[in-house]
Amino acid sequence: MAAPVALDAMGGDHAPHEIVAGAVTAVREHGVPVVLVGAPRPLAEALAAHDATREIPIVRAEEALAMHEGALASLRRPRSSIAVACHLVRRGDACAVVSAGSTAGIVATARLRLRGQQGVLRPAIAVALPTRPRPTVLLDAGANAEVKPEMLLQFAHLGTAYAESALHVENPRVGLLTIGSEAEKGDKVVKRAHELLAAAPSLDFAGNVEGHDLLTGKVDVVVTDGFTGNVALKTMEGAVRYAFGELRATVESGPLSRLGALLQRSKIRRLRHRLDPDAYGGAVLLGLNGTVVIAHGAARAGSIAAACALAATLAAARTVARTGERVAAAGRSHRLW
Amino acid sequence: MAAPVALDAMGGDHAPHEIVAGAVTAVREHGVPVVLVGAPRPLAEALAAHDATREIPIVRAEEALAMHEGALASLRRPRSSIAVACHLVRRGDACAVVSAGSTAGIVATARLRLRGQQGVLRPAIAVALPTRPRPTVLLDAGANAEVKPEMLLQFAHLGTAYAESALHVENPRVGLLTIGSEAEKGDKVVKRAHELLAAAPSLDFAGNVEGHDLLTGKVDVVVTDGFTGNVALKTMEGAVRYAFGELRATVESGPLSRLGALLQRSKIRRLRHRLDPDAYGGAVLLGLNGTVVIAHGAARAGSIAAACALAATLAAARTVARTGERVAAAGRSHRLW
Repeated sequence: MAAPVALDAMGGDHAPHEIVAGAVTAVREHGVPVVLVGAPRPLAEALAAHDATREIPIVRAEEALAMHEGALASLRRPRSSIAVACHLVRRGDACAVVSAGSTAGIVATARLRLRGQQGVLRPAIAVALPTRPRPTVLLDAGANAEVKPEMLLQFAHLGTAYAESALHVENPRVGLLTIGSEAEKGDKVVKRAHELLAAAPSLDFAGNVEGHDLLTGKVDVVVTDGFTGNVALKTMEGAVRYAFGELRATVESGPLSRLGALLQRSKIRRLRHRLDPDAYGGAVLLGLNGTVVIAHGAARAGSIAAACALAATLAAARTVARTGERVAAAGRSHRLW
Repeated sequence: MAAPVALDAMGGDHAPHEIVAGAVTAVREHGVPVVLVGAPRPLAEALAAHDATREIPIVRAEEALAMHEGALASLRRPRSSIAVACHLVRRGDACAVVSAGSTAGIVATARLRLRGQQGVLRPAIAVALPTRPRPTVLLDAGANAEVKPEMLLQFAHLGTAYAESALHVENPRVGLLTIGSEAEKGDKVVKRAHELLAAAPSLDFAGNVEGHDLLTGKVDVVVTDGFTGNVALKTMEGAVRYAFGELRATVESGPLSRLGALLQRSKIRRLRHRLDPDAYGGAVLLGLNGTVVIAHGAARAGSIAAACALAATLAAARTVARTGERVAAAGRSHRLW
């Protein structure tokens, strides 16, 4: 039987109860083995309430990073639940880490405990956007507010390995996010990154893409710095929420329209769910010696379970090994790192 | 009678016919006087087709900037339609410039012909987002891919003057777009800009905002660099388009749903239109000695007319004077420029 997913039970706005509930859903509905990491007593009580004491083991971690705590806290708390979860992966007792804690805290702790893969300049956060027929990988979604052109090139390799291994995309097309389709558009870093990407032998570089291309499926992997990527991702989430809000206000005005709304409510709810970032399981931290999935801080049981399923998929797909191989091969060919 | 709007008849994907049609709509439906700038013969023919020869004068400009031409072309073409339009404003023969040409070309030409206002480090492109109850001003939406902290501070003043004068917002609340609500979030430029904004006596600085705040009306003015702003704006447009596309696919599947969709089609179309960036008239180039409105390159008659109406509103609201006064006063108090 596969090693379990190490789930940080203390991270997230709704920890530990929604996290434990998510673990139960992951085990019972997704068939994903999970070990909960955190304070034993409250976790044992929560598991008992689900009558799941025998299904899900608990690994003790007395400390936890608060949601507002950033990178430094991970140094002050070597025994935090996220640090212990990383340790389990390092020892091979778990196949992946899942946490809904503070992103800065997770990134810092995971970098410290799992270390970057050989040649990786910086790990990047990748998110799979709900495009059709297949998702689009956007990275970096927030790990590195400032980047060098070489990092953007590496992100292209990390995202390509993710798309190939976990999303089963053959020869993923890579786009560079900027403010115009011409090669010279953007700031200095982006212009240089464009040159590096265009010269990369092992990438299918499709050139520049713009904000309105993110959800059209024009490319399979969108590369950008963590500042722009984070703003774009949150802008996208906000715009979809806004569109649905305006829509509800519109369709529910007037008797005939209300009838129409009634006829569609369930479908619209399903669509909303599909477009809800929580539904697609969370962000993946690529470039470390271990699989790390970052769930939404506000994640409830359903999205925690989805994050555990995503983590198990990545582990089974050997995504970590594939990113490592790609970065190593690219390093040899580019002579950049 | 007010000076007319100088409309660049040669700029845009659908020039000159949709531009001329837009001029006719602006004059007849919005009561905004317009003068067309461009090649006399085709414009005269187009006006004749609308039976509008006597309503709309033509100012000759033999050259035009192609849509793919950027900043340098404005130097090579001193008699381009956009350059001549700027000249009319400079001479006081027009109250504002409207163009659907290439943004880079418009910005470069306008900076060259109208010059920046006293103390303005860089002009910025401002867009009014369709939030309720009042629009939210986002700037810079693309004029400056790279900025200094002092420029972001100036953008806050430019956007505040725009919101006060043209959108009638009292004491506009200003937000700084970044990747977290805490003051220390973001890159070096943003962190320093946060300090400058927090220390500015004549601004109502509400702190950091994130991508998902852009359409909630949380603040009245959102300040960011032209790279992030452009990506965010286009991401927003793409996400709204995507949400409506997914929605149509959803509501039109299944007989009952189709009926529901039927009942709402017209309303949904109206909502779509309201959220369509074309509908809100275009972007405003702030910080120059003259009013410049940049219409969408793909703009058709309706949005060209809306852009002319917006330009007339800005001219009547003395937005240029208000931005100048604010920047001058801020320069005295901040001692930064």
